[in-house]
Amino acid sequence: MTADARWSCPIPGTYEHVVLGHGSGGRLTQQLLERVFLPALAGPTLARLEDQATLTLPGGARIAFTTDAFVVSPLFFPGGDLGKLAIHGTINDLAVGGATPRWIAASFVLEEGLPLAILERIVRSMRAACDEAGVELVAGDTKVVEKGKGDGLFVTTSGIGLVPPHLDLSVRNAKPGDRVLVSGTLGDHGIAVLSVREGLELGLETSLESDTAPLADLCRALLEVCPRLRWMRDPTRGGVASALTELAAGSRVGVRLDEARLPIRDEVRGACELLGLDPLYVANEGKVIAVVPPEEADAVLSAMRAHPRGRDAAEIGEITEDARALVVMRSLIGGERLVEMLSGEQLPRIC
Amino acid sequence: MTADARWSCPIPGTYEHVVLGHGSGGRLTQQLLERVFLPALAGPTLARLEDQATLTLPGGARIAFTTDAFVVSPLFFPGGDLGKLAIHGTINDLAVGGATPRWIAASFVLEEGLPLAILERIVRSMRAACDEAGVELVAGDTKVVEKGKGDGLFVTTSGIGLVPPHLDLSVRNAKPGDRVLVSGTLGDHGIAVLSVREGLELGLETSLESDTAPLADLCRALLEVCPRLRWMRDPTRGGVASALTELAAGSRVGVRLDEARLPIRDEVRGACELLGLDPLYVANEGKVIAVVPPEEADAVLSAMRAHPRGRDAAEIGEITEDARALVVMRSLIGGERLVEMLSGEQLPRIC
Repeated sequence: MTADARWSCPIPGTYEHVVLGHGSGGRLTQQLLERVFLPALAGPTLARLEDQATLTLPGGARIAFTTDAFVVSPLFFPGGDLGKLAIHGTINDLAVGGATPRWIAASFVLEEGLPLAILERIVRSMRAACDEAGVELVAGDTKVVEKGKGDGLFVTTSGIGLVPPHLDLSVRNAKPGDRVLVSGTLGDHGIAVLSVREGLELGLETSLESDTAPLADLCRALLEVCPRLRWMRDPTRGGVASALTELAAGSRVGVRLDEARLPIRDEVRGACELLGLDPLYVANEGKVIAVVPPEEADAVLSAMRAHPRGRDAAEIGEITEDARALVVMRSLIGGERLVEMLSGEQLPRIC
Repeated sequence: MTADARWSCPIPGTYEHVVLGHGSGGRLTQQLLERVFLPALAGPTLARLEDQATLTLPGGARIAFTTDAFVVSPLFFPGGDLGKLAIHGTINDLAVGGATPRWIAASFVLEEGLPLAILERIVRSMRAACDEAGVELVAGDTKVVEKGKGDGLFVTTSGIGLVPPHLDLSVRNAKPGDRVLVSGTLGDHGIAVLSVREGLELGLETSLESDTAPLADLCRALLEVCPRLRWMRDPTRGGVASALTELAAGSRVGVRLDEARLPIRDEVRGACELLGLDPLYVANEGKVIAVVPPEEADAVLSAMRAHPRGRDAAEIGEITEDARALVVMRSLIGGERLVEMLSGEQLPRIC
């Protein structure tokens, strides 16, 4: 069975109803944003489409602000759970903007019938994740919906971070010649969740764990080594491919990836082959992509590898001049292929 | 049919699973907080249990931060919709803390199959509500769950406001002799939602509209007149009764209400009688309770009444010395009754 048959939606088109692919983080999400959300909601900040909003307070101090809903299924998976993911995800959206995450607010939508013991495990996991990352959960809310109107537990976390002065990370900043680095192996989170969700049915057994992790410390280390760093992103839904297609469009540049250099675990590669998935599109929850000036690439790569969360870091490609803003990949057998934004829904409810 | 039979849960006890009453804003919500959330999550800020967290930035500036999930059913009701409610609710949580609301982040959990036209109406309504209140929606996120795993649309909004210096509003501040003011009629939101949800079935027809409205301007006006104002709260889920029982407990004082002074529309009174509901527990979405020193009560009441959102304002009671922290109400016929925190679920999914 191929990924197309099970998880993909038809080619993006004009939908009149929400489909699972609208939550993919890929092209359908983009379409929904462009058709529904941006026309109604976009102001100067939202329109920048970064993972976090940077806001200037009276007096000049800057804060970063972000929100994400977490609906991962199942609630517990190898290497993590919904609670951990909800804290890491929001911390990482702040961190890749160069901010120091400080405060989190969490809202819970509980389905009637959810065992309180499950809820307790999730919130304890959230607290542990906050403590590990040095952030404080300062506000919360709980709503309950009738049995059959939810799915156990959805959590939305919002976060505030402090933005150092003189920092300017942006999806518009990449320049031809810049190098593309990634802090470790690709696709671990997506395949770990999939393995527990579909593993038995698919004969997919693996010791793989989600890479979910807080990245603020790693991001700070990279910015110390390279204050001129152009842009960072944690490639979650839609994977590395979707993040880099957004970068190409935002900076009006091309991206050339080298497949031979992509750090991918054997288990992930095997599962992807079995399922017809492309690891470039599979979600990561503890990896950062960084685009850096060429002369600083080695120093940043060394800094990544020196950090416990970046041991498998690699340089995976470079920024090129390309008015069409295409992402291409030199394949293992020497050809070149176009890397497009994820077009359907590869793995629903992965985060 | 009485409210007990339809909407109430058994007397609070030891639940092992989530019940609808856990979302009531009343005693079961409190139990869930005390059993599950606070033991795991509470730090110095969350433990204050205000409607918003007040955070101090390096340099001394203060911001307020809050989050709320909105799961109201149906999505559209007389006088409002989920989108408007989601913006007003978060603005008001900031405003009652004395903050000037500035920035909103919104996360959406969409159910597969939701018509995009419905989503469009909701987000346009959110934008209109932001514009009216002078706040900017700066960040967002969208997730999609399978049909039957959600209920059309849930929205979580989080907000940041600026806190003026020297302000100290707190649920711990009330002192015997203080007066309790409310900015207008009670129960309009809850009964308006109920009328459209259950109206046909119950033979309940009314022209009543939800009072959903942004309160920042009104709250600012009150603080200008009375910088020593003790505490404000928008009495949403759980109504005036739950807000005042929290105040009594927080300040270790009593509250004495006068039923004859409660501003309640005839339609709300009639619907409550029909349904066996108590308007003191019915949700409001555009009203503020303010507790003020006695010598400033008249000035604050005049300021409320001079504001378009406070025309029906009234003084409804006073703070008393009471080590048991009880809220009591002098009834219309002269007796006195205890006003307890809502014990079950009066109206599920009202916000």
